[in-house]
Amino acid sequence: MNDKPLILVTNDDGISAPGIRTLIHIMNTIGDVVVVAPDSPQSGMGHAVTINSTLHLEAVSIDDGPQKEYTCSGTPTDCVKIAISELLDRKPDLCVSGINHGSNSSINIIYSGTMSAAVEAGIKGIPAIGFSLCDYSWNANFEMTKTYIQSITRSTLKNGLDQGTVLNVNFPKPTTEYKGVMICRQANAHWEETFDKRTNPLGKDYYWLSGTFENYDKGNDTDEWALANQYVSVVPVQFDMTAHQSINKLKNWKL
Amino acid sequence: MNDKPLILVTNDDGISAPGIRTLIHIMNTIGDVVVVAPDSPQSGMGHAVTINSTLHLEAVSIDDGPQKEYTCSGTPTDCVKIAISELLDRKPDLCVSGINHGSNSSINIIYSGTMSAAVEAGIKGIPAIGFSLCDYSWNANFEMTKTYIQSITRSTLKNGLDQGTVLNVNFPKPTTEYKGVMICRQANAHWEETFDKRTNPLGKDYYWLSGTFENYDKGNDTDEWALANQYVSVVPVQFDMTAHQSINKLKNWKL
Repeated sequence: MNDKPLILVTNDDGISAPGIRTLIHIMNTIGDVVVVAPDSPQSGMGHAVTINSTLHLEAVSIDDGPQKEYTCSGTPTDCVKIAISELLDRKPDLCVSGINHGSNSSINIIYSGTMSAAVEAGIKGIPAIGFSLCDYSWNANFEMTKTYIQSITRSTLKNGLDQGTVLNVNFPKPTTEYKGVMICRQANAHWEETFDKRTNPLGKDYYWLSGTFENYDKGNDTDEWALANQYVSVVPVQFDMTAHQSINKLKNWKL
Repeated sequence: MNDKPLILVTNDDGISAPGIRTLIHIMNTIGDVVVVAPDSPQSGMGHAVTINSTLHLEAVSIDDGPQKEYTCSGTPTDCVKIAISELLDRKPDLCVSGINHGSNSSINIIYSGTMSAAVEAGIKGIPAIGFSLCDYSWNANFEMTKTYIQSITRSTLKNGLDQGTVLNVNFPKPTTEYKGVMICRQANAHWEETFDKRTNPLGKDYYWLSGTFENYDKGNDTDEWALANQYVSVVPVQFDMTAHQSINKLKNWKL
């Protein structure tokens, strides 16, 4: 009889990314780990699902360890759906996604494949956490995240999460020691795009999406504030997107 | 001097879908219309953005009318970003997305390219509405939606929307006359997946994502209730995904 928790691990940077390899090693110290992760990078895929094409699933072995691993040809959300529906013989006790190479704070949650995987697990009633490090480099140093990830994961398994919520955890760039954990809200921030227009060798114009991240939120209770002040940010996230506070006002419209 | 509102129109079914053609014709009766829509179907793309590939933008002419039209090779979210950043000489007064061929009620909002386009406009401070008809057919009959879309659009332009919110409007399948508009909340419902496993001519397994939509919400104030009772559902949607009600509980965790 095995009473270790069953943990599903996924990400959006692809199964070979150092971030997910780190997360797998941490989760192996906590539970029985099954990895279902994209076979190629899926950053910026948001909550996309593959409905107009087919999906492939392959058992793979990437490095040593007790985990079972599979690659999926789809998006992070597809990975969670196919893991639960086709691979696992019971509902996992936890789903963790990441560690993302790059921030998923504030509005980035909405574009993030990492967080969409966690949200998808949450939709299915599974406690879920997305972990991201504010460093886009493939060679980012995840060392300082480890004890925090263990602590947050064990607390989540012990306490559970409110129904309809998951956690969005971001780690500051590890330039100096982290000051601790801050529970916060999503900052009111967004991207200001600047498309880079170029001409291809055939004379046809094309664009690269680029931009700057602008924080309009001066509050000291936001994830942006926490990260700028070297705290690990933890935002509880819900997927009931109803703006309940606007319902009564709209009822006064004559529609 | 032109004081007509500037309206950006997009969708996720692609620029030639009957749903967006209907929406363009309606919007031409209300304002100056610029269409920037995907050059191919983008259903289920959620809030995906194109960051690892290039984007193309082409001026096109699909049918008669005063609207200006462009196709974009990207996702619905890309369409909104590139329209605002590269094409429009001022911020539009409104962004409308759809009319989607198929429901975007309840949790479907999170997978929906149609709604993600509206949310992206909302993130940029533009009042925005996603319209969807609960009929997936290309030959769906949009006739009964027209007066409602005009009324909801004019009310939105007149009253504005609360900051940080957009509208998710769904129309029942037009089998019998609509009973009116209901302002509601997102139902607590989700998809139960059943992957269809097949073998390709080379002997390799592959999967099609499929499933059934399960409504666990017995409330009579939800979009699912409205649609099942032949009302047009209007849900105000927010993109601050913070579960504010969970923050204090998490602060008691020893992290």
